[in-house]
Amino acid sequence: MTLELFGLKKIPLVKKGDDIAKIIEDDLKEEDIQLENGDILLIAETLISKAEGNIIKMDDVEVSDKAIEIAEKCKKDPKIVETILQESNEIVAVGPNFIVTETKHGFVCANSGIDESNVEDGLATPMPENPDKSAKEIREYLEEKYQKEIAIIITDTQGRAFRVGAIGTAIGCSGINPLWVRIGDTDLYGRALETTEVATADELAAAASLLMGQADEGIPIVLIRGFDAFNILRDTETGIKPLLRPKEFDVFRK
Amino acid sequence: MTLELFGLKKIPLVKKGDDIAKIIEDDLKEEDIQLENGDILLIAETLISKAEGNIIKMDDVEVSDKAIEIAEKCKKDPKIVETILQESNEIVAVGPNFIVTETKHGFVCANSGIDESNVEDGLATPMPENPDKSAKEIREYLEEKYQKEIAIIITDTQGRAFRVGAIGTAIGCSGINPLWVRIGDTDLYGRALETTEVATADELAAAASLLMGQADEGIPIVLIRGFDAFNILRDTETGIKPLLRPKEFDVFRK
Repeated sequence: MTLELFGLKKIPLVKKGDDIAKIIEDDLKEEDIQLENGDILLIAETLISKAEGNIIKMDDVEVSDKAIEIAEKCKKDPKIVETILQESNEIVAVGPNFIVTETKHGFVCANSGIDESNVEDGLATPMPENPDKSAKEIREYLEEKYQKEIAIIITDTQGRAFRVGAIGTAIGCSGINPLWVRIGDTDLYGRALETTEVATADELAAAASLLMGQADEGIPIVLIRGFDAFNILRDTETGIKPLLRPKEFDVFRK
Repeated sequence: MTLELFGLKKIPLVKKGDDIAKIIEDDLKEEDIQLENGDILLIAETLISKAEGNIIKMDDVEVSDKAIEIAEKCKKDPKIVETILQESNEIVAVGPNFIVTETKHGFVCANSGIDESNVEDGLATPMPENPDKSAKEIREYLEEKYQKEIAIIITDTQGRAFRVGAIGTAIGCSGINPLWVRIGDTDLYGRALETTEVATADELAAAASLLMGQADEGIPIVLIRGFDAFNILRDTETGIKPLLRPKEFDVFRK
């Protein structure tokens, strides 16, 4: 029982209008990698945002009074705060140099997931518009090319409540259900499993992050091979939504 | 750039007094696996607790008034609630059928991490007494046997705020610093990295969980090979503490 992770090494710097699916196809050719059934490709969200041209010029941002007020509280640049507010449904918590929001997509994370890294100065990349849709388009293109059943997961690096440090986290997916519901499965003693819901897509994202973070030049795409549960979780309709806890069920959002 | 995960296949059911380090040594021999420098062994916490005989008999639990009161709120068995309280420093939140506490170790998690699974009926396993110490003892034994530098991480499966589903999480470690502080590292454009603190031990635990969860009989120990950052993070003194956010710095614990 083994699992293999490969970092794709030939991914060029991405610019607006680039076709990520094609870029992956070219990389796989160049590295002589054949996709297999059950392969899972994990893609750093910043790659998708850049291909979408989903980039905010800080100079163009008009700062609202609310942004100025919150910028005071958290000691962030008012323009950054304004972009964070524009990308959010609501503010969950404000802390020193961060604002935890619920993003337009429904993710609860710091600074609406806006990434000031890996873009030229004066620019910031928000999360992709629709990570599930991007994942689906890339999956369908590669499945058609290779005639294999695969999954695509779009990943971000996010902090957590209660624990220090960020980890790779799934923000979009296609081809696999992100949540493994194991109700009915039993343990060594035939008892119902303690853990009946596993956020498999988040575990895959965290695993991929181990490679993405390492190389100096960064590894934006990781291939995971040998995840047998792919067959159980295969699902071409469901996106990331099963991993998002509705506000009314979250004891930390009262 | 690749990462390999192996599930150790010959781990027997563990009972009180068993020597986990010796059990791992025997498994590696049987599977003909030679440990290499930089290998990381991830061990499910329930294995450590069982070897410690750290098991609570529900019949022996004397229920306090506070436990009865909280059991009312969360609709859990008062005896389970009592054990949860006894394993905790404080209650963080109470929800339907769960109590989020800070455990004696300082972890914020559901039900003080008490595991009702994989033990015979009427018994429950709390977290290991001192996961860092257990990890250190196992590491030192195996490093001495194999004359290699390795890391041991004790893992649990824990839920999260804001997201559905549990993921593999590190609760003890030895041989590696669990937190990768990257302040000073730069991105593709020479800018300071957005993410300066990565909870590497949690990412390793989540990756291992992908294998631990799969087999029907369960894979309690996973070997991760090829994690180059091991050399950067090598540390024989630090335990899991760098991943625990002090209460006063957590906006979700006001």
